[in-house]
Amino acid sequence: MTLPQATQTLSVMSDTADLPEAAQTALARAEELMLRVVDSDVHVLRDASRHILAAGGKRIRPKLVVLSCLAVGGEPNDDILRVAAAVELVHTASVVHDDINDHGVLRRGRPSVNAIWGRTFALLTGDFLFTKVYELMAPLREMNVPFAEATMALVEGETLQAAAVKDNNFTREVYYQIIARKTAALFRAAAYMGAVMSNDDLRYADALSNYGFNIGLAFQIVDDVLDIVGEPEKLGKTSGIDLAQGRGFAAAYNAEPVVVDNGDPMEAIKRKMMNTDTLNDARIKARVLVDSAIDSLDVLPNSEAKSALIDLAYSVIDREF
Amino acid sequence: MTLPQATQTLSVMSDTADLPEAAQTALARAEELMLRVVDSDVHVLRDASRHILAAGGKRIRPKLVVLSCLAVGGEPNDDILRVAAAVELVHTASVVHDDINDHGVLRRGRPSVNAIWGRTFALLTGDFLFTKVYELMAPLREMNVPFAEATMALVEGETLQAAAVKDNNFTREVYYQIIARKTAALFRAAAYMGAVMSNDDLRYADALSNYGFNIGLAFQIVDDVLDIVGEPEKLGKTSGIDLAQGRGFAAAYNAEPVVVDNGDPMEAIKRKMMNTDTLNDARIKARVLVDSAIDSLDVLPNSEAKSALIDLAYSVIDREF
Repeated sequence: MTLPQATQTLSVMSDTADLPEAAQTALARAEELMLRVVDSDVHVLRDASRHILAAGGKRIRPKLVVLSCLAVGGEPNDDILRVAAAVELVHTASVVHDDINDHGVLRRGRPSVNAIWGRTFALLTGDFLFTKVYELMAPLREMNVPFAEATMALVEGETLQAAAVKDNNFTREVYYQIIARKTAALFRAAAYMGAVMSNDDLRYADALSNYGFNIGLAFQIVDDVLDIVGEPEKLGKTSGIDLAQGRGFAAAYNAEPVVVDNGDPMEAIKRKMMNTDTLNDARIKARVLVDSAIDSLDVLPNSEAKSALIDLAYSVIDREF
Repeated sequence: MTLPQATQTLSVMSDTADLPEAAQTALARAEELMLRVVDSDVHVLRDASRHILAAGGKRIRPKLVVLSCLAVGGEPNDDILRVAAAVELVHTASVVHDDINDHGVLRRGRPSVNAIWGRTFALLTGDFLFTKVYELMAPLREMNVPFAEATMALVEGETLQAAAVKDNNFTREVYYQIIARKTAALFRAAAYMGAVMSNDDLRYADALSNYGFNIGLAFQIVDDVLDIVGEPEKLGKTSGIDLAQGRGFAAAYNAEPVVVDNGDPMEAIKRKMMNTDTLNDARIKARVLVDSAIDSLDVLPNSEAKSALIDLAYSVIDREF
């Protein structure tokens, strides 16, 4: 398949080589913490958790925590590492449960937890990861309220999405409500917590909240477009799931009926998406959000970490189309 | 069906009329808090949560929190009410997910969440309830660590159970590991938190921890026997699920093969269970645990709340057989 304006890169800074050294060290330690915290004498929980964690993923949420900490002049201490691990684990929990509901068999380039261990253990592994998030966060006091709110938004966003599919009510307005909650709220919380735990100046926390929220929206828009045009081998997850269920950008941006022409309906929809202005529309929207995110950082002093946050914002939209 | 030594009562103090007035008031307020905290503009989450909460249930975990608070001389303040609501919500979350895995269609005398809303929304409702627990507990600081541990034990216990069924490894030892985690850990945490939040004397917190843990074990043993001999109309949930899946007391206590005799295999198993010493064995075990629980309370001064805790312990084993 020929992709319009295809670029070479898919991952969002999937390695940390370009980050400040302090961020690289912190992220490596957060990674160890994640693998350690999911240890359990209930082996299926440990094995399934490590399977999905070891598969990689972009780790964009932990990066937001660590870079926000550094950008406001903080040191990534043990509390920051806990938050960095927790934001990735709550995302991973939602991914494991999402794959149950979507019957997704491929995730991060590997078989999904439900594909290997079955639905019952996948459900319990997701619950286990949610619980581990709670365990990690428990000692952190003030951070539990914003973290709980972001977690709730995540679940509500996933539910709004399922309800919109069921009720066939997928307008652009509903689409933005969904992505604000299911993705942008946790991005915002990650950046906010990294900042507020490291510096008392609330202008910094506000700036990084805005930054996180806007790149969260951009990230999800790009993700949904990739779901339409991407190949599963490159995406590392079962492609076209969102589209097949009539949700995401496809449904929101696609008001006209698709002519299937006796072919594969998904191919027909993809063809239609690529023949319309949808992808450009999405590119423009995502770019506006990223520009706005970067503008929020003006209040911060220049630093390696601030530059890395700017690069991270661009990488969100540069990974395709 | 004629039950051996049947008694008239099924519920464990399902109303609060016999409790101290302060406990009645606190439990009514905890009930309001639960219904209020699951409010959401995502209506399916609100409706499904209220459906399962309004169906009732024994509310034994909130009772443990409130009575433990009163028994150590405390007042059920707003923090106690949060914990009382949270312990019931985490139990409810696990019940909603359990009914997905078990295909349970009846719960607390009403259709289960997955029977009405389907699997996807049931999964998300369980996640939502877990999240609401986190939200309720977030401001409580010190209590988050014991609560997180109990929640983790709950998920691990459910997983051990599913793994024991899958591996056909249902010994009595495994059975006790399962019920200690999936039930007794949360009972213990509920009683512990009610005490430790209300009185600095750690002897009281220890006593109530032991009390909670032992009646938790007794409660689950009785529950598993009821699952064998109970009628769904009386139990209010789909009966025989545990048995049909080869788990619980049935499997652990039932080493000999069952002769099905061309009849309903479940009826044959029930008949066998009632023809052996299993029920008496269970009754004795549960009684020993309850006696031990009540002994733990010796350290507490006499009070209406202490008497209510003793009554509660007896009610756990008197609800059948």
